[in-house]
Amino acid sequence: MRNYDLIEADTALEIVLKHVYPLSPQMVTTFEGLDLVLAQEVMAQEDLPPFPCSAKDGFAVIAHDTTNPRRLIGEQTAGYIADLRVEMGTCARITTGAPLPPGADAVMMVEYTQEAAGMITLQREVAPGADVRPVGQDIATGQRVLEAGLSIGPQEIGLLASLGYTAVLAHPRPRVGVLSTGDEIVEPDMTPKPGQIRDSNRYTLMAAIQRAGMQPISLGIGSDKQEELMAKIAEGLSTCDALITSGGVSMGKLDLIKPILETEGQVHFGLVNMKPGKPLTFATMRGKPIFALPGFPVSSLVSFELFVRPALLKMSGQRLLLRPRVPATLVETIHGDAWRPEFHRVKLARERGVWMARTTGAQSSGRLLSMVGANGLLVLPKRSQPFVAGETVTAILLDHPETEPYPPSWATA
Amino acid sequence: MRNYDLIEADTALEIVLKHVYPLSPQMVTTFEGLDLVLAQEVMAQEDLPPFPCSAKDGFAVIAHDTTNPRRLIGEQTAGYIADLRVEMGTCARITTGAPLPPGADAVMMVEYTQEAAGMITLQREVAPGADVRPVGQDIATGQRVLEAGLSIGPQEIGLLASLGYTAVLAHPRPRVGVLSTGDEIVEPDMTPKPGQIRDSNRYTLMAAIQRAGMQPISLGIGSDKQEELMAKIAEGLSTCDALITSGGVSMGKLDLIKPILETEGQVHFGLVNMKPGKPLTFATMRGKPIFALPGFPVSSLVSFELFVRPALLKMSGQRLLLRPRVPATLVETIHGDAWRPEFHRVKLARERGVWMARTTGAQSSGRLLSMVGANGLLVLPKRSQPFVAGETVTAILLDHPETEPYPPSWATA
Repeated sequence: MRNYDLIEADTALEIVLKHVYPLSPQMVTTFEGLDLVLAQEVMAQEDLPPFPCSAKDGFAVIAHDTTNPRRLIGEQTAGYIADLRVEMGTCARITTGAPLPPGADAVMMVEYTQEAAGMITLQREVAPGADVRPVGQDIATGQRVLEAGLSIGPQEIGLLASLGYTAVLAHPRPRVGVLSTGDEIVEPDMTPKPGQIRDSNRYTLMAAIQRAGMQPISLGIGSDKQEELMAKIAEGLSTCDALITSGGVSMGKLDLIKPILETEGQVHFGLVNMKPGKPLTFATMRGKPIFALPGFPVSSLVSFELFVRPALLKMSGQRLLLRPRVPATLVETIHGDAWRPEFHRVKLARERGVWMARTTGAQSSGRLLSMVGANGLLVLPKRSQPFVAGETVTAILLDHPETEPYPPSWATA
Repeated sequence: MRNYDLIEADTALEIVLKHVYPLSPQMVTTFEGLDLVLAQEVMAQEDLPPFPCSAKDGFAVIAHDTTNPRRLIGEQTAGYIADLRVEMGTCARITTGAPLPPGADAVMMVEYTQEAAGMITLQREVAPGADVRPVGQDIATGQRVLEAGLSIGPQEIGLLASLGYTAVLAHPRPRVGVLSTGDEIVEPDMTPKPGQIRDSNRYTLMAAIQRAGMQPISLGIGSDKQEELMAKIAEGLSTCDALITSGGVSMGKLDLIKPILETEGQVHFGLVNMKPGKPLTFATMRGKPIFALPGFPVSSLVSFELFVRPALLKMSGQRLLLRPRVPATLVETIHGDAWRPEFHRVKLARERGVWMARTTGAQSSGRLLSMVGANGLLVLPKRSQPFVAGETVTAILLDHPETEPYPPSWATA
């Protein structure tokens, strides 16, 4: 195994993002497109509304006709074309959304009319075009309605449906394989024998992948045998767009993964100057990214959040890759780390316009409880003195959507 | 059909939330629990770690033993119990996560040792307990680790897995039926005949339901026949927890829905003083909420966001029901409505610490384009004078998670 330089977290992120690319666009059905990134521009092939129609319930009339009362010649409701023609001295009952009958050029709202013995009295004047929605009022044929790069939301799906698009070109949802490793790891429904513990990382990471809008694929648990790990990685690469391994916590274990990555692919870094997550390793193999995360539960989830999630978002074609960072004031004194920058798990609450941070307690890498209820990570520089109550530090908002492209605004600030 | 009073939007929301309740908790598998609200407290039935284990790669030793070098008696890796006992003058090789052999009470990191001819030299002193993770360090048996009411995220799923919980009690994902109505509405893959348009609302609403973390159920398109609508609503009520109808835009159409709701259920309001969305109708039938949304695409989506989504979140057991509201400064002059409060669709961007709002253009209720790219709604009071560039108004952040309980902080401010 090679020796790896200890690199800074910012450098590690830069390297990761340099080695991942948006997945090739594919046709997906419009509804499957929810939360994917559109990879085509969308032009309207037709007008909306496609025919002049009424915006109100009332009577279709000729605006300059001053006959009063005028004769009711029939009714036009929505969904078909009635055999009607409005002429001088006549009008037709019409409902909202119904096509305007030939001859008519305006609609008088029912509220301003009186009806008696088949005759309609208009109680106000009406201007030509009043309460008529002309052809193409909302969308005109040939108009560009959606741009490539947009994240497809409910309104975009509705727009596509209304224009008859049943499928569109989009960057697919990355399929992300997750492999736990370690002879001591057993499935959560097993009773661990002496020396064994249950797998939590795979379930944590798969949930985090799903929350990021990607498709998690379980690759199971790999033992500490090199051939078995190699086979699992090969299997993952053949079916997934990216792989995440984690497991155990031993250097010996990473010793098994790293030689495989070094031989079969290219390792881009193997040590990051941060706490938790120092042994984080990033490689590419057959053009696909592999994240070998440290096995401690907190280390793996924090590493996922800081490095894997932005990479998966870039693979999805997203432009905004990073969560917002804000100044946060400490409610209580917090001990950082004298030797490495620390990502400290906190509960953030906005109080009178200021983000206030409360620690989730002991920050041991094995203590998943330090993530429970956490909605923020403090970015603490290495420092032997404590960060005291009232001090302001940078916090990452973990429950906010990504708002920053890469490089982020704070990189240039 | 009854006549309905025009009520304010705040009152409408209050009425809606008064009539919906969290769904009865059910057992779900841990992984299915992602983003559901936990309906039980979770106690640890065992310790984590379950055995004293090493936090580092190195050598298991007796701390007060000063023998140097000392004899290497074997190796303890993770996952089983080796037949080893560390005694004075000896040590055992150990990997991270491996159980501490009997006799040993500390681990010396490999970095501070030298190995030669089966003998290990310690280059530093080691304190009792050094780099040993004692039983229950992370979690102790009987400890309450999760509280009822918590939204289950990746870390909670990992925690449950590590404690052997394969299922938990949670409020289920509401099943929400969506019915489009109107003789003029056809499926998006059809070519509309004269007088017809394609359905967009059902797809928009189903996507919005999915994004809210609920389960959308398509009830198809109902024609303007009362018996057919009644049958569709009955079908929806038998399989869903809540119903949404929308369709066409005609008063005549709501005339069909409202009498059904009045006869078979209870209508709580039928007119709201807002733009878009004035004809919004809310009823309960057989204890389930029914939202009869106006048919214009923008009206239905804005109504969903303001009234249906908070209701569905409450049904999911969530405590935070409302999106954040912030002051936003207008980049350009915007025309509101002289007669009704308007929810104006905008693009919001944070610039030098201030939310800046740009309109999405013409705010016609039929123009779904006014929602494309919109990430905010301005809450504009009714006013005949325009809202001028530089003016500050209240904005709802549509792409932010809910941060407010009901009643929200601004209700008491």
